[in-house]
Amino acid sequence: MPYRAWFSCVAGCPGEHPLSQVIYRCPSCAGLLEVVHDEAALRRRSPAAWMRVFDERFLRTSWPYGSGVWGKKEWVQPMISADNVVSLFEGGSNLFWAERYGAQLGVSDLWIKQCGTSHTGSFKDLGMTVLVSTVKQMRADGAPIRAVACASTGDTSAALAAYGAAAGIPVIVLLPANKITAAQLVQPIANGAIVCSLDTDFDGCMKVVQRLTDTDRGDSGIYLANSMNSLRVEGQKTISLEIVQQFDWEVPDWVLVPGGNLGNVSAIAKGFMEMKRLGLISTPPRLVCCQAEHANPLFLAYERARAAGREMTLDDFEAVRARPTLASAIQIGDPVSLPKAVKALVDTGGIVLQASEAQLANASARADRTGLFTCPHTGVALACLEQLIERGTIGAEDRVVVVSTAHGLKFTEFKAGYHERRLGFESEYANTPVSITGDPEQAIGELHRLLDQRGD
Amino acid sequence: MPYRAWFSCVAGCPGEHPLSQVIYRCPSCAGLLEVVHDEAALRRRSPAAWMRVFDERFLRTSWPYGSGVWGKKEWVQPMISADNVVSLFEGGSNLFWAERYGAQLGVSDLWIKQCGTSHTGSFKDLGMTVLVSTVKQMRADGAPIRAVACASTGDTSAALAAYGAAAGIPVIVLLPANKITAAQLVQPIANGAIVCSLDTDFDGCMKVVQRLTDTDRGDSGIYLANSMNSLRVEGQKTISLEIVQQFDWEVPDWVLVPGGNLGNVSAIAKGFMEMKRLGLISTPPRLVCCQAEHANPLFLAYERARAAGREMTLDDFEAVRARPTLASAIQIGDPVSLPKAVKALVDTGGIVLQASEAQLANASARADRTGLFTCPHTGVALACLEQLIERGTIGAEDRVVVVSTAHGLKFTEFKAGYHERRLGFESEYANTPVSITGDPEQAIGELHRLLDQRGD
Repeated sequence: MPYRAWFSCVAGCPGEHPLSQVIYRCPSCAGLLEVVHDEAALRRRSPAAWMRVFDERFLRTSWPYGSGVWGKKEWVQPMISADNVVSLFEGGSNLFWAERYGAQLGVSDLWIKQCGTSHTGSFKDLGMTVLVSTVKQMRADGAPIRAVACASTGDTSAALAAYGAAAGIPVIVLLPANKITAAQLVQPIANGAIVCSLDTDFDGCMKVVQRLTDTDRGDSGIYLANSMNSLRVEGQKTISLEIVQQFDWEVPDWVLVPGGNLGNVSAIAKGFMEMKRLGLISTPPRLVCCQAEHANPLFLAYERARAAGREMTLDDFEAVRARPTLASAIQIGDPVSLPKAVKALVDTGGIVLQASEAQLANASARADRTGLFTCPHTGVALACLEQLIERGTIGAEDRVVVVSTAHGLKFTEFKAGYHERRLGFESEYANTPVSITGDPEQAIGELHRLLDQRGD
Repeated sequence: MPYRAWFSCVAGCPGEHPLSQVIYRCPSCAGLLEVVHDEAALRRRSPAAWMRVFDERFLRTSWPYGSGVWGKKEWVQPMISADNVVSLFEGGSNLFWAERYGAQLGVSDLWIKQCGTSHTGSFKDLGMTVLVSTVKQMRADGAPIRAVACASTGDTSAALAAYGAAAGIPVIVLLPANKITAAQLVQPIANGAIVCSLDTDFDGCMKVVQRLTDTDRGDSGIYLANSMNSLRVEGQKTISLEIVQQFDWEVPDWVLVPGGNLGNVSAIAKGFMEMKRLGLISTPPRLVCCQAEHANPLFLAYERARAAGREMTLDDFEAVRARPTLASAIQIGDPVSLPKAVKALVDTGGIVLQASEAQLANASARADRTGLFTCPHTGVALACLEQLIERGTIGAEDRVVVVSTAHGLKFTEFKAGYHERRLGFESEYANTPVSITGDPEQAIGELHRLLDQRGD
């Protein structure tokens, strides 16, 4: 196998750990791991040759390379045979030119990367295909893994359950008692996951998860698909490769990403930095990590560093108690991927911003009126975009990409609440159904009056 | 412009009507129109040349040809300039190899065409891009069209509202009073459509719609995106072209499609028959139109003809009063596209089957356990598939495609009801959350016992 990758400690502890090892943390410092590729091997192909290979494979029929993730297999997870890839044709999502929304904001080159138009409706598919494929390979090689587990009520459990079901690998979803409803968990339930309510609170639930990951105490036979797992980052980093590819290998000026646990902004930065090191691009875009004001620890760290006139470091960070936010998936006060994210933002000249509940909901609704159907997390990123344009940081001619993380169909209650003005702030773009007559002749007149009123 | 298409009467009345004309029915017989292409012009390219053109464009970046629909522009709607195409990168959806589900049923070459993985979450995007683009072209050419309207609570209004919003063309959604909730209509409301509740019942609502379409009485300025509109068929027929393309231009043996208003089965047949006439394939697959037992008029007509030992004709048909069904989008007793569908089924050696409520829901849930997340209409098609395999009509080696019409995320209430056993029949594949201890050591033991019980 000419291409190779392994786990290494993010903090620089020595040691290479095989991707087929059940390992979640650095054995020396207990910190985060990341996947490192043999870049010398990757350099045997020129940048132009890689672009050609990636283009030839993109969304085509040659298994498994048609997938947006597996078309970049050598850069993602080279040590898996094609038979063990578990792919649902992830990636390849629309890079939507937001012509009308951009015109309203005063930018003409605004694009939305629609990662939510996918099998399970969120960007989590991109990482989960890599994790579940790796588990399938490990099982094929004789590893005693009976099931893959996660502790999540949201997109992670949905993606894990779907990929596990497609592969025939059992999935366990762990949650504290009284947190389980069929409506909330309909995806993992439908996909046949073992959905367990633990007779304990959330902290107790995390203790069970930690026992599962405690590889010193013998292998539990249950592999953990938690957010520390850096295999998922390898799939998510293809968002960057795909954005550049969809611009015919041009780099945008800005990429905005919602940030909670900070895995996705880290993954996106990793994609750009690897493309830079391997010569496919010369400069990465500036990343903007967009937090909800109710869960903004990275924003506070960034502001502390900025007030002191220096670059953000880990020392600037303090965990916060996250408050409930409409952007529920990023309601996180102590992000797992913090060290990676700080590096990502420093590497790319990045910015951290925050959006209030009203700002995120109004930005989401405003964008929807131009043809999108955004999730509240994407609303956070759009609200931050509006701030950067107002400040003049993002210029009228800049090419900007906003990473949309989930399909709005996962958030119909949020949208119904907004348009029914039930969210506790002003719904500036609320759209209210109107009653008109049932008389055919008069109805046409009334419709025209409604069109006049809207200025259409 | 070397390629040309026009509206013609399905029943054979003379006359060619321009695609830019506001016309919904044949002016002679008031029957259905269809789009007819200048096939002599299309024949100037060989079948192999068309395949090459379609492959070169497929999901690439050259506007508007990257769209699965617009990559076949000459075959779909040639008379539109690229500037007036309103595209959200429709088509190109996963052709999912249902390896595990197929193995359970005893077929090894089973595929699900995932048309619901799309911008608005249903196959309606495919047709709506053609209709809205045509309206944009007509407006650009000076036609006095102020808005596009439809009478729908479902996928049609969602798709129309999104494409209208992207194009900046006002959209009107007409519904009888008391049929409008924000949750039900969250997509058109979010996309800024004028959502009107008419002070009348559904029949009264149809009278207003008919007044809008009555072109004899002068143009109302409001274009109707109803299901008679055969521009939408042109987009939907690309499902067939894309299926064949995704098999590297091989034709499957069977294609199963849910059927209510029968527009989609007609469109899919049209795609295959045009490919046959133009030499891209030699034989179309056999089509199976799959109806809910609660809305089965075509099934009854098919059975009448079969009992009489002859092919189905329009004379076999009687409208029925459709009963409520979980497959709500196909709850139709008097289908608009009946004449086209009868021809489609005769042309392709087609079959019509039906599925009960329990059958459709259980088939949907069974498929979900293998990684899918099916809508109830897809459940109807899967239940019919199971019948045809049991009967031996579909053989173990046959290549079968099931057209999945919408994303399961649009039907979370259906799925939650199924798994909570609230649907009034036995939920054979229900998955119920389980409670376990919160003690870490004991929890691992309990998880292994749960895995043992499932036989995983």
